[in-house]
Amino acid sequence: MREFELIERLTRSLYTHPMVLVGAGDDCAVLDVGLPERLLLFKTDAVVEGIHFTSGAPAEKIGHKALGRCLSDIAAMGGTPTTALVTLALPTAFDPAYIQRIYAGIDVLARRFDVAVAGGETTTNPERLLISISLLGWVSRGKAVLRSGAKPGDVLFVTGELGGSIHGKHFEFEPRLTEARWLAEEFPVHSMIDLSDGLAGDLRHLLKADGLGAELLGSAIPISRETRRASKLSTSAKPALLAALTDGEDFELLFTAPGAEAVKLLDAWKTRFPQLALHCIGKITATPGVSIRDRQGVRPLNVHGYEHFAEPR
Amino acid sequence: MREFELIERLTRSLYTHPMVLVGAGDDCAVLDVGLPERLLLFKTDAVVEGIHFTSGAPAEKIGHKALGRCLSDIAAMGGTPTTALVTLALPTAFDPAYIQRIYAGIDVLARRFDVAVAGGETTTNPERLLISISLLGWVSRGKAVLRSGAKPGDVLFVTGELGGSIHGKHFEFEPRLTEARWLAEEFPVHSMIDLSDGLAGDLRHLLKADGLGAELLGSAIPISRETRRASKLSTSAKPALLAALTDGEDFELLFTAPGAEAVKLLDAWKTRFPQLALHCIGKITATPGVSIRDRQGVRPLNVHGYEHFAEPR
Repeated sequence: MREFELIERLTRSLYTHPMVLVGAGDDCAVLDVGLPERLLLFKTDAVVEGIHFTSGAPAEKIGHKALGRCLSDIAAMGGTPTTALVTLALPTAFDPAYIQRIYAGIDVLARRFDVAVAGGETTTNPERLLISISLLGWVSRGKAVLRSGAKPGDVLFVTGELGGSIHGKHFEFEPRLTEARWLAEEFPVHSMIDLSDGLAGDLRHLLKADGLGAELLGSAIPISRETRRASKLSTSAKPALLAALTDGEDFELLFTAPGAEAVKLLDAWKTRFPQLALHCIGKITATPGVSIRDRQGVRPLNVHGYEHFAEPR
Repeated sequence: MREFELIERLTRSLYTHPMVLVGAGDDCAVLDVGLPERLLLFKTDAVVEGIHFTSGAPAEKIGHKALGRCLSDIAAMGGTPTTALVTLALPTAFDPAYIQRIYAGIDVLARRFDVAVAGGETTTNPERLLISISLLGWVSRGKAVLRSGAKPGDVLFVTGELGGSIHGKHFEFEPRLTEARWLAEEFPVHSMIDLSDGLAGDLRHLLKADGLGAELLGSAIPISRETRRASKLSTSAKPALLAALTDGEDFELLFTAPGAEAVKLLDAWKTRFPQLALHCIGKITATPGVSIRDRQGVRPLNVHGYEHFAEPR
């Protein structure tokens, strides 16, 4: 059984109550705690040695990534993070100084985004280090941006550049908190998700809730310099566009807004965030399924890339 | 380096902000989210295969224990749990049906205490199953009971019976939520903790914050039937009193209240909770250190049991 299938089974009949406005299946849970102007966001995310980072990776960067992933999820709701708990599952042989440096990495990012670290837990996981972060945040009532909510005709936007995160960005990415909050406040953003599984996969999460489809414009997909370099240097590397579509851990924002707002949004973005590119990469369609348009025509795209298609290099 | 020493180092200079009323070092973090009548409780706790449960243990019981431990921490603050997230770190070979049964165990307890399961996360931990629960709760403003707050002359109370949890209770314990909330509402409870490390160890956590000590009355420590039986059956078992003092995972409440309230509290308890024993086991002293009084006199007690003392059976 695939992971997504298991999750779907597990979360099908969870006990819930009216306080939970959004439960399993979005970037964060959204809770109504009775405050007139805001809603509570609640998120948990873990990184595991050998899966999300290699043994002996720079400790500060592991800390940055552990907290940064959760921050990116708060961003994807248009929220502001406030308070974290850190769960450390330590291998049998661990170096306290290394663990302290992981905490230092968490601390730098926490201070930058004004996130209190209000405690946590230490336990044992004999073979490998695991760090799980629980994070709370706020979002203005009426301003939470969900994965659902896209409409046919919406334009698809993505921040930054995609692919090749493994060459360094996965340890150093900047959670797009300021940008996402600005978007949610200033524009009628219909739906948003942060890119962790890769554009092709995360786009499907976005479309799934509403049973919609999307058409991507191949030439508009922003390909990172690392991806271009890797695909040029090695014949065994993924073609650059395929990498941009399917590489994980970009931690950029993917969102949709009405077509009529697209030019205004792009212009306002350039003024507000001149250092970070925003790209219009396609549109939402009423017909389910994702396709990609390039000079050769329109082809179906699946979560693993181009369906039944040998990509020319 | 011991675990407690590492935690102390890690938590010494955590970034915090005024919203965090209680951070690292208590059963839960306590957050002021701006609601006039209540404060938010925030807790995380993990159970690990081979550490907190054996491989192949009954799945529903693992689920019960995972959520129950967190509920017990909310209880120890006098709080009411509301919303949980479940992090599952799955070994390479896992049986989906087994995982679903773990969730079923979580679900039964969640429904019983009206806790919404608002999602979570699934990740990989190749060698062993790890389940981490993040839990939110409320406590009435002014009614949060901390580990600190004990005063010399306070009487020490403990619910239920202690020791031998490994023989079954660690999988089936009842989080003392109703009892703790009633205590916090009805009596001037000065300090409280749930027993997870064993009475001798957890008592020290309670005393540490205020630099106080305690004198226990050996004959008043409630020893569970399982502990008595185990110590009779095997000469290699811990003496029963030592087991009651040092066995972990009792998940009972240890709390202090003014001596003048003791009789009234015990009487009211018997009426309100006739099925669950409450024992007065000693008193708080201004002098640091823990001692135990029995027919042979007063002896020092450390976290591992009697200090430099061969216990007669």
